[in-house]
Amino acid sequence: MLQKMLENVRMTNPLIHNITNYVTVNDCANIILASGASPIMADDKNEVSEISSLCQGLVVNIGTLNSRTIASMLIAGKESNKNNHPVVLDPVGVGASKFRTETVKQFLEEVTVTVIRGNISEIKALAVGKGRARGVDANIADQITEDNLSEAITFLKAYAEKVRAVIVVTGAIDIVTDGQTSYCIRNGHPMMSSVTGTGCQLSALIGAFVAANPDYPLEASVAAVVSMGYAGQLAFERLTDKDGNATYRNYIIDAIYRMTPDLLEKGAHYDIR
Amino acid sequence: MLQKMLENVRMTNPLIHNITNYVTVNDCANIILASGASPIMADDKNEVSEISSLCQGLVVNIGTLNSRTIASMLIAGKESNKNNHPVVLDPVGVGASKFRTETVKQFLEEVTVTVIRGNISEIKALAVGKGRARGVDANIADQITEDNLSEAITFLKAYAEKVRAVIVVTGAIDIVTDGQTSYCIRNGHPMMSSVTGTGCQLSALIGAFVAANPDYPLEASVAAVVSMGYAGQLAFERLTDKDGNATYRNYIIDAIYRMTPDLLEKGAHYDIR
Amino acid sequence: MLQKMLENVRMTNPLIHNITNYVTVNDCANIILASGASPIMADDKNEVSEISSLCQGLVVNIGTLNSRTIASMLIAGKESNKNNHPVVLDPVGVGASKFRTETVKQFLEEVTVTVIRGNISEIKALAVGKGRARGVDANIADQITEDNLSEAITFLKAYAEKVRAVIVVTGAIDIVTDGQTSYCIRNGHPMMSSVTGTGCQLSALIGAFVAANPDYPLEASVAAVVSMGYAGQLAFERLTDKDGNATYRNYIIDAIYRMTPDLLEKGAHYDIR
Repeated sequence: MLQKMLENVRMTNPLIHNITNYVTVNDCANIILASGASPIMADDKNEVSEISSLCQGLVVNIGTLNSRTIASMLIAGKESNKNNHPVVLDPVGVGASKFRTETVKQFLEEVTVTVIRGNISEIKALAVGKGRARGVDANIADQITEDNLSEAITFLKAYAEKVRAVIVVTGAIDIVTDGQTSYCIRNGHPMMSSVTGTGCQLSALIGAFVAANPDYPLEASVAAVVSMGYAGQLAFERLTDKDGNATYRNYIIDAIYRMTPDLLEKGAHYDIR
Repeated sequence: MLQKMLENVRMTNPLIHNITNYVTVNDCANIILASGASPIMADDKNEVSEISSLCQGLVVNIGTLNSRTIASMLIAGKESNKNNHPVVLDPVGVGASKFRTETVKQFLEEVTVTVIRGNISEIKALAVGKGRARGVDANIADQITEDNLSEAITFLKAYAEKVRAVIVVTGAIDIVTDGQTSYCIRNGHPMMSSVTGTGCQLSALIGAFVAANPDYPLEASVAAVVSMGYAGQLAFERLTDKDGNATYRNYIIDAIYRMTPDLLEKGAHYDIR
Repeated sequence: MLQKMLENVRMTNPLIHNITNYVTVNDCANIILASGASPIMADDKNEVSEISSLCQGLVVNIGTLNSRTIASMLIAGKESNKNNHPVVLDPVGVGASKFRTETVKQFLEEVTVTVIRGNISEIKALAVGKGRARGVDANIADQITEDNLSEAITFLKAYAEKVRAVIVVTGAIDIVTDGQTSYCIRNGHPMMSSVTGTGCQLSALIGAFVAANPDYPLEASVAAVVSMGYAGQLAFERLTDKDGNATYRNYIIDAIYRMTPDLLEKGAHYDIR
């Protein structure tokens, strides 16, 4: 199943419209290219409708949210809905400011989203209305462990059902659920949190996978999450004792570029609940 | 000839004012430094006139065009004209939205440009008024091949004459023409299209070369195009089977840093028509 | 002393609010992570007060200053003052435009800053009111050498006393002074100037060190400057004859990631005046 998802990205080369932050945008563009899809970044309200309609998918990321682009996000989201293009939302830092929380609330009211990806604190902020985010990182008290895994899945399934979207929560254990079926994914490496924007990159990658597999948003999201996590493992194996997070950043994107459908299937480490 | 162009960048260390996109801006700054020139990025309308007048050249790139910076592009362009500084225009994605098309049209009406660099779809959108751009990438139907090369050159020469600028079109074969003399350049590597912003980087590099060789915009542009393409070849040779587009991105800039006038001359692969 | 400063960054993992430029922002985020701190970039006036209050320190960098974020810088600065969080100012290119000069003047009037880091031309522009900046680089006529070192220190001590802040001037020799005690630091490598944003990265790093050591802004700044310079030396030693400024950029951040308190102490090369 994962193989087919990646094959479709490589074969259909979907064009992905990104309205994103200026911190990690270059890595997002390069990881989309590494996957076999193509990125376009455009955020002015005078053109986002046209740009979105040219594309096969939209990724909205509020990492450096500013007043100028909120209207653009809404216009692009609605245009994507009109064209039945998948919409991925990355609510970076939601809960850390009213501005982020209210913008995401409005976006979810006006736009139908296909996938929401965040860390557990961000998803809790969305679902419960009050987050404990530590800036753009998950609060340690929120972390998903083997002990609270069942509870977390139950919570995320309920939220996925409520918003009718695939929910992707990343952390030590990643969970992907559409409210019916849930995947617990144990790929990845702790050092990934020392690279800025691995979450943003994953959201961009989900955009590529879901646009290439529009009828399988759950499976496509799982394939993207496993790709990213397994790339983090493969990249870690290459590091010498002089390499740090900058080289690691490059090797993760390199590993997505070199990923094959077979390699992905073999490296996947998940169970379905 | 190419040797002299690069020597002049290294010797005169021109300061290049860039009004550019937030996706590839860091790579543009580093490739300008790699060439021996210095970059400054500034896009607020309250300072672009002063900044442009401090510099020896201007590069305007509309990759993430937004309403705020259109006025800045026009002010900086006019200031550069007043000071006889070369102006390089990279009309990223022109034809993909009315907003981009109209902005470029206005820029070309109000500012005298020295060089326009784009992919063939972008240049067609400018010349014919209607493009078939696929986002920021060239449309496959537009691609220049050995079969349509003569026809493409005739078309580009006519457009260069009309706008009185050097036209640089990059793709599998690169063409540089001032309307009289045309260079067909066969450096480069297909993998360059898997790195975001190699086109933007080339436009920045052209800015450095043309600013250092203001009386030779055609030859300076050719030297920049050959440098970029040959750097792409040298960088490719270094890749291991684990390296992907992120490492390749770094190696391309590294190769510009290590380029010598002799190496450039020896690696050049072009004919003049 | 330096050891303790780095240990505190690693142990307390301070959250650093950055209002910065879009050229070097990704490297700033990654170097903050490499040091053991965490970055958050947020620049909209609707949220900067909340974001700053969540953090332990603020870094304001005017590299691509624009009208939209000036208010944000002031709000975040005042909020940080209210919470007794350290504020680091990087007045990139001050003196190159009235817009930058006036913005920095206003910031210094309304916000109490803990550290100001710049090249010598920028600090002269601040102190004397008229700079000779060459864009974002120091003017060669301003450079600190062994010959004018005593004179430079006297000048910088007086300015530090006047603004009641730690002044960090980087160049071939780095000077850090609080007006009483001055450190002359001889770490670093000339090739660092061929990487865009090593100055910005250092300012971000100072933010991390000062936030983790709020009672020792002088010593924390020295530790950050030595870390950056020594990282530049260690990174240079790794370069092969094919590597250039892009690989060097990554290796510098890697070296910060791999820096240990012991290594830092051993590699430090400074005298106190």
